[in-house]
Amino acid sequence: MATYVEIVSIGNELLIGKTLNTNAQWLAKRITSLGLSVSRITVIADEVKTIAETLREAVRRNPNFIITTGGLGPTFDDKTQEGIAEAFCSQLEINEKALEMVKGKYGEYAEEMGHETFELTPARVKMAKIPKMAEPLPNPMGTAPAIAIRNNSVTVFALPGVPSEMRAIFENSLLPILEDAAGNLTFFETSLYVAGVMESEMAPLIDHVMHDNPYIYIKSHPMGAEKKPKIELHLSTHAEDAETAKKRVDRALIQLLEIIKAKSGKSKIAKPKKF
Amino acid sequence: MATYVEIVSIGNELLIGKTLNTNAQWLAKRITSLGLSVSRITVIADEVKTIAETLREAVRRNPNFIITTGGLGPTFDDKTQEGIAEAFCSQLEINEKALEMVKGKYGEYAEEMGHETFELTPARVKMAKIPKMAEPLPNPMGTAPAIAIRNNSVTVFALPGVPSEMRAIFENSLLPILEDAAGNLTFFETSLYVAGVMESEMAPLIDHVMHDNPYIYIKSHPMGAEKKPKIELHLSTHAEDAETAKKRVDRALIQLLEIIKAKSGKSKIAKPKKF
Repeated sequence: MATYVEIVSIGNELLIGKTLNTNAQWLAKRITSLGLSVSRITVIADEVKTIAETLREAVRRNPNFIITTGGLGPTFDDKTQEGIAEAFCSQLEINEKALEMVKGKYGEYAEEMGHETFELTPARVKMAKIPKMAEPLPNPMGTAPAIAIRNNSVTVFALPGVPSEMRAIFENSLLPILEDAAGNLTFFETSLYVAGVMESEMAPLIDHVMHDNPYIYIKSHPMGAEKKPKIELHLSTHAEDAETAKKRVDRALIQLLEIIKAKSGKSKIAKPKKF
Repeated sequence: MATYVEIVSIGNELLIGKTLNTNAQWLAKRITSLGLSVSRITVIADEVKTIAETLREAVRRNPNFIITTGGLGPTFDDKTQEGIAEAFCSQLEINEKALEMVKGKYGEYAEEMGHETFELTPARVKMAKIPKMAEPLPNPMGTAPAIAIRNNSVTVFALPGVPSEMRAIFENSLLPILEDAAGNLTFFETSLYVAGVMESEMAPLIDHVMHDNPYIYIKSHPMGAEKKPKIELHLSTHAEDAETAKKRVDRALIQLLEIIKAKSGKSKIAKPKKF
């Protein structure tokens, strides 16, 4: 059984094209490599109502996990906690554990920077104001704690938008939970680069190979133009173990190589990459 | 009155993190620079049902435009036309204008590649099968035509996923329509880089400046860590003309510069960039 994850990226900077959404790509790649499936990525503005509605819509699609990024900081437009509270009809309140995390961080900073202390201003306390039903997750790389919420069949994680913080919290707090949810399912992928056969010519042949290899998904990515054809054929599969996955992909690869040879095309199998 | 655009990015390669969604960023930046507002970006799989549902949801939010990318090619998993047809209860049929476009392309390719002709195989004809209510848009950089659909108050454009094709069709066919919809509204932005003031310390001051400058939106982006603070303050506004926009931003900038000086921080205004 596949385990589904929705990603919700929160931030006006993404909607005006100022920031490239590398967080969503990193998460999608990491989650896929663990054997889970990302079913949707939604990018929305820093607005409480929009955040709440988007989360409710996501919950109705019944994924196993929802991971949000962005909007946990000290400024007025960091509204993710408020949006989540509204989505799940929870109250925002200062969480003692979260406040200890924030206090601890400013204590460390004061020491490192040679200040006597840093006052816990409202902007700093704000980062410890989380939905009543949420559990704070420590942020090893920054100030704002992340949170986890379990609501019936879905678990929601809210991570900061700063990439180094998002990644560190993912590896420390989310990884064991997601690995556990994935069970034995692994993801395996490889690419075959084809030159000299048009994508429109490959199309029915890919269909044929996918029909013969029901567990393999093949997607063609044109890299040149149709008239100077270069295509990347990306083969992927989910399987109970890595050996089965590799065997399946290899079988489809051999079939593709024969077809491309018969069409007088050239092909090259990608070198295996580590994530 | 703001004009809203939703972007729908279609492609499994985005959901497995294989491809970074540079198309959505390019569109978001370009659309914002024209004075329109991107209200949501949704990334979904190559599945007819998902595409249809996502488009129907988007229509219910009542944007002025919906722009999709991806899924117009010749392979079995290019399902955008089918998804759009289902969303708007339209039939897929071979559009004569679109077929002429596809034929013309293969005619050119044959000539350039020294072939006598290229057969119009089902995979190639597929690219001319569009919803009955759609109008094909020429693709100057590739084979698959884009389409436009007008449905009550919303206009839907479906563009290919290959970046060069997507951009060319945007500039040729969408630009005049979007410019017209934007009216006089222009977008103006600049950045102020701040060092030596913590984001949590800037937070209430940003609030203050935004309160005094109601048309200016200021977003802080931490670039260092809270303890080695470097922040980008991004200022933006929509206005009826460029001069008004610039005046407003300058007024907010001066106020910010004074505040940062009083906090013994350093600041630097970004050089103006051209899009």
